[in-house]
Amino acid sequence: MSKMKAAILGASGYTGADMVRLALAHPAIEIVALSGERKAGLPLAQVLPNFTFAKGLPDLVMADAIQYDALDVVFGCLPHATSQKLIKTIMAGVSPPRIIDLSADFRLRDAETYAHWYGGAHEAPELQREAVYGLTEFARAALPSARLVACPGCYPTAALLALLPLLQARAIKSVNITINALSGVSGAGRSLKESNLFCEVAEAMAPYALGGHRHMPEMEQELSLAAGEAVTISFVPHLVPINRGELETIMVELAPGNSIAELRAALQVRYADEAFVHLLPEGVVPATRMVRGSNHIVLNLFADRIPGRAILVACIDNLVKGSSGQALQNFNAMFGFDERCGLEALPLFP
Amino acid sequence: MSKMKAAILGASGYTGADMVRLALAHPAIEIVALSGERKAGLPLAQVLPNFTFAKGLPDLVMADAIQYDALDVVFGCLPHATSQKLIKTIMAGVSPPRIIDLSADFRLRDAETYAHWYGGAHEAPELQREAVYGLTEFARAALPSARLVACPGCYPTAALLALLPLLQARAIKSVNITINALSGVSGAGRSLKESNLFCEVAEAMAPYALGGHRHMPEMEQELSLAAGEAVTISFVPHLVPINRGELETIMVELAPGNSIAELRAALQVRYADEAFVHLLPEGVVPATRMVRGSNHIVLNLFADRIPGRAILVACIDNLVKGSSGQALQNFNAMFGFDERCGLEALPLFP
Amino acid sequence: MSKMKAAILGASGYTGADMVRLALAHPAIEIVALSGERKAGLPLAQVLPNFTFAKGLPDLVMADAIQYDALDVVFGCLPHATSQKLIKTIMAGVSPPRIIDLSADFRLRDAETYAHWYGGAHEAPELQREAVYGLTEFARAALPSARLVACPGCYPTAALLALLPLLQARAIKSVNITINALSGVSGAGRSLKESNLFCEVAEAMAPYALGGHRHMPEMEQELSLAAGEAVTISFVPHLVPINRGELETIMVELAPGNSIAELRAALQVRYADEAFVHLLPEGVVPATRMVRGSNHIVLNLFADRIPGRAILVACIDNLVKGSSGQALQNFNAMFGFDERCGLEALPLFP
Amino acid sequence: MSKMKAAILGASGYTGADMVRLALAHPAIEIVALSGERKAGLPLAQVLPNFTFAKGLPDLVMADAIQYDALDVVFGCLPHATSQKLIKTIMAGVSPPRIIDLSADFRLRDAETYAHWYGGAHEAPELQREAVYGLTEFARAALPSARLVACPGCYPTAALLALLPLLQARAIKSVNITINALSGVSGAGRSLKESNLFCEVAEAMAPYALGGHRHMPEMEQELSLAAGEAVTISFVPHLVPINRGELETIMVELAPGNSIAELRAALQVRYADEAFVHLLPEGVVPATRMVRGSNHIVLNLFADRIPGRAILVACIDNLVKGSSGQALQNFNAMFGFDERCGLEALPLFP
Repeated sequence: MSKMKAAILGASGYTGADMVRLALAHPAIEIVALSGERKAGLPLAQVLPNFTFAKGLPDLVMADAIQYDALDVVFGCLPHATSQKLIKTIMAGVSPPRIIDLSADFRLRDAETYAHWYGGAHEAPELQREAVYGLTEFARAALPSARLVACPGCYPTAALLALLPLLQARAIKSVNITINALSGVSGAGRSLKESNLFCEVAEAMAPYALGGHRHMPEMEQELSLAAGEAVTISFVPHLVPINRGELETIMVELAPGNSIAELRAALQVRYADEAFVHLLPEGVVPATRMVRGSNHIVLNLFADRIPGRAILVACIDNLVKGSSGQALQNFNAMFGFDERCGLEALPLFP
Repeated sequence: MSKMKAAILGASGYTGADMVRLALAHPAIEIVALSGERKAGLPLAQVLPNFTFAKGLPDLVMADAIQYDALDVVFGCLPHATSQKLIKTIMAGVSPPRIIDLSADFRLRDAETYAHWYGGAHEAPELQREAVYGLTEFARAALPSARLVACPGCYPTAALLALLPLLQARAIKSVNITINALSGVSGAGRSLKESNLFCEVAEAMAPYALGGHRHMPEMEQELSLAAGEAVTISFVPHLVPINRGELETIMVELAPGNSIAELRAALQVRYADEAFVHLLPEGVVPATRMVRGSNHIVLNLFADRIPGRAILVACIDNLVKGSSGQALQNFNAMFGFDERCGLEALPLFP
Repeated sequence: MSKMKAAILGASGYTGADMVRLALAHPAIEIVALSGERKAGLPLAQVLPNFTFAKGLPDLVMADAIQYDALDVVFGCLPHATSQKLIKTIMAGVSPPRIIDLSADFRLRDAETYAHWYGGAHEAPELQREAVYGLTEFARAALPSARLVACPGCYPTAALLALLPLLQARAIKSVNITINALSGVSGAGRSLKESNLFCEVAEAMAPYALGGHRHMPEMEQELSLAAGEAVTISFVPHLVPINRGELETIMVELAPGNSIAELRAALQVRYADEAFVHLLPEGVVPATRMVRGSNHIVLNLFADRIPGRAILVACIDNLVKGSSGQALQNFNAMFGFDERCGLEALPLFP
Repeated sequence: MSKMKAAILGASGYTGADMVRLALAHPAIEIVALSGERKAGLPLAQVLPNFTFAKGLPDLVMADAIQYDALDVVFGCLPHATSQKLIKTIMAGVSPPRIIDLSADFRLRDAETYAHWYGGAHEAPELQREAVYGLTEFARAALPSARLVACPGCYPTAALLALLPLLQARAIKSVNITINALSGVSGAGRSLKESNLFCEVAEAMAPYALGGHRHMPEMEQELSLAAGEAVTISFVPHLVPINRGELETIMVELAPGNSIAELRAALQVRYADEAFVHLLPEGVVPATRMVRGSNHIVLNLFADRIPGRAILVACIDNLVKGSSGQALQNFNAMFGFDERCGLEALPLFP
């Protein structure tokens, strides 16, 4: 297998850390550059404990010190809004690498929606339009030729995998979709905020971003495309004291003439051949411990006590399927490898 | 203050432990008997670590070894279905104590509903009808003369305090009420089940009892009374790796002609003079760390992104306001003490 | 009871938070000022979640905006090295309040030792000499007349209470004392350091400050006084993913002619009448869950497998007995109240 | 690579679970049988959440229903004392498989020591003598021809890897070795004991088995062999609220004429070529987050404040290097594979 030369930008955060961990174990990737602005000059092992004895990793450098034209692929794990300008520059190169961006910068297709939710005009609107929304299972046609892939946010990944087949099959209504989400703390990143301190989070829980989380317009964009009409959702994320793991409990209304059985069938048919998406047997309750550390998603469907409604439950590891794992799955699809390559690790329990 | 002689039944579980902790600190309670069937004969300190150096506590005995006629009050912390027969016997005594029952046995007024959800006929249906449903803030008229008080479940406590004023004010619709709840593990009790083991729960989360939790009919009973018509709710509880704490995120539909402001006003008016129920200032997000270890409940109200809907958030300590604290608050109301007596402790943070 | 007017400096940190929580519940304290440099101007409830509904608390101000001469007592919860100058100024007032300092600034009596461990000369060496080292159980003679009390560090509190009676009785040797300590994260304070982030600490553990923790000279100072000769200890603290709690496992060598029984007797005699220090029955293992949220310390003594040695185990809540609780106990002793006043709360379990 | 047919006994516990996880990913192992006495008849996915979507695993059966003669290797993950009789029977077969036992049954070579610590005579003393003590890095000469390998306990694994080279080099004294250990809860297994419940363990810590843990004689056996004289150690294990991870802080006395530098050199030389044993750079503190989920061990060495003494710190994942990972490493050494085969996974952080 000839190796692809890769850079990972923002390697010192939690998403970057998992990107490096997965890329290092991939047989077709050679990591040739790692960036980390505030930690440039340091070996990764001094910044992330789990690379203490990893071998052959380059030291962290400034992102603009990397020779991008010599690369095959760039994994962007930079904070939101800091990627777009850099990526525009990289892609303007002579023989630019392909970009797999894990930030939110290229997820929204509409310039106005972006400006509204991110508080300013996009610096590369033409790329915003070009970018492929990389929910792998629904993006396969576009990935092999994509120059720029925007990986979905962690919440949208779980929600869309649960909802898209049902909307596409017109099995559920496109109104009154309610998503209650629980996330581990790694989803908030490694930044020094009081709300991320151990003593604030441990033995505690709370919702956040009530009515205004940036993953909302992203979900609505993709759900609207699937439904063929504008979809407005209700979404409440909660912070829970675990490192990694994400759980969504989704309430939907059945479309006329549909039953739980028909919804189940729609998911079953859609995901029968998927390596990472698992509709559990009837009655089995999804739990994050089923997927911890892996690229899998477990889904199930239950009748609600209120007639005409159903409850969907989906669990992922927010750093893997919700972030770096999906990015690697996209890499596989883009470069013609088996999608499972480098992602076969079983979940870790306990 | 003349002291009331009290027995606490089921003192070796988590609910019993908190009942003893609170009762011990109450200036008008003298604990004269503690029961614990499997641990009878042992000092409480050998069974519960936090009583290692508590003084003056009687040893655990079998519940039927207690002289109930000599008592003023009994706090029943027995598992569900094990209380009803014993309580019937106690109340048939010559000068029986008043009973504050924390189990589910006397919460449901309807014999058939009870039989359906608890899998068998009630053994004291006449007491089931007599029992006062002890949501203190809504039961004050009945408590002073009550012989038997059934304390609400932890989930109903938070949900009802959030919803009852809104239903009574006809500010929300009685349909499509959706309750997403997160609970710490102490809510599951101290029984030796694999699902309660540290390694199953830590760094993990999952919903449970999907579509069929026993607190559902209890909530529906009280919501229906408030609404003046039958209410069917959607309720999904989740287990989260913390010891104590409970959070509910409740979606409601506004009644015609109502706005968030009107809902806020209804809660504000109703709870202005309550010692333990706190509507937070606009925009402040309730969190369990605001109430840990205390008898307080924090509430707030937010506009949903879906027009015509609102999101309510409520946080309690499931073992205090959701259980033993509320029982003590009922004791205060029943016996004529200030409701705050013995419940003034501030929350513990961190 | 006439109330003492108190200020609490550094009220927005974890130690300050517990100081306010305890002081608020004390019947003889009136909190008239709270300082918090970076959060001056805010109500405490916006800074600490557990004061969300506390009543009657003054807003945070700058420490130098407080009128100290009008006060009876000041509780200093400022970071190390920031207290000494301010306290010197306060004590130079016309009718200065008495000072209970929880920082490390006045714990070391020797100016050179201070300079060595804290990296600079002390700014109030005369007060350093005057300050009473406030390990309450061993400082009672001096407390009633003390103008300035330096409360011990959390690690020294547990270690000294375990070791002082044994050294004073010459029951153990003064050499080869080894202290292995485990601490919850609140001991590290509320500062924004990467090492305090939830994801760095949860599901993890590590030692720190190997060979050079600042509590070492403090322990050696007091142990040397008790032993009547210079004592050098081995001390290794570890960080463990809990909010509050501290455990020390201490290895000692028996003095010639002594047995475990004699050591046990020495502790028993010394602590028989203490309200907060508990030597557990033989064989009962101390655990932090016995003391969580309370001012108690549990101790026990075990034979080591290596002949001639013993193992001491001590557990405290680092924020209460290890910090704010002990400060309040000192307040009680200084002002003539029962030492237990305001500190009767039983531990919280689970 | 021709595949070895393997059975895993006791597959439904935590050790068994990790043994299956690792064996499934090993390119030269085919799992043909899994035993689980109480769960016989069930698919593993119903018993362990992380195998929800693993493919090709046989259902659990009773251990005596397995055809052992058809196998190449058996991994024994049964509770202590339940293995010896079964293994004796298996090894008496016509063409018995080779046995890698993870229980304590064959770790002690001396029959009397076994009887003393395990409360009864061994049922296969001849095998007890034959068994190879499988601390891989020190057992390589014997492994290729071993019929029965007894894998070390988790605590001995970390302690022996830290101490053996120093004792063999006579760089430390063989007296006064003190081992303070912290372990995650998975080390206590999956049995239904109150002490393993989430609410007993979370936000808490305590030592256990003071003076009498069964890993003591195992460590003393191997340390004595290395020292050439009887070694008696002091060992105190503590339970800490994490799932997986083990940390040992070891105090030793330097042998005359030795310094920290010489100890460091002894470790460096011994482990220079080891794939899984890492002496960290001077001053870098070992932490469990460096090894979580991996087969690595990180070690370091520090000067003690007491002259003439040193502090060793070692961290492993108790379920991997301390148990199933080391078993697989032994398998590789026994069957002639690269020791790293199937064990390349990087640690998981966060």
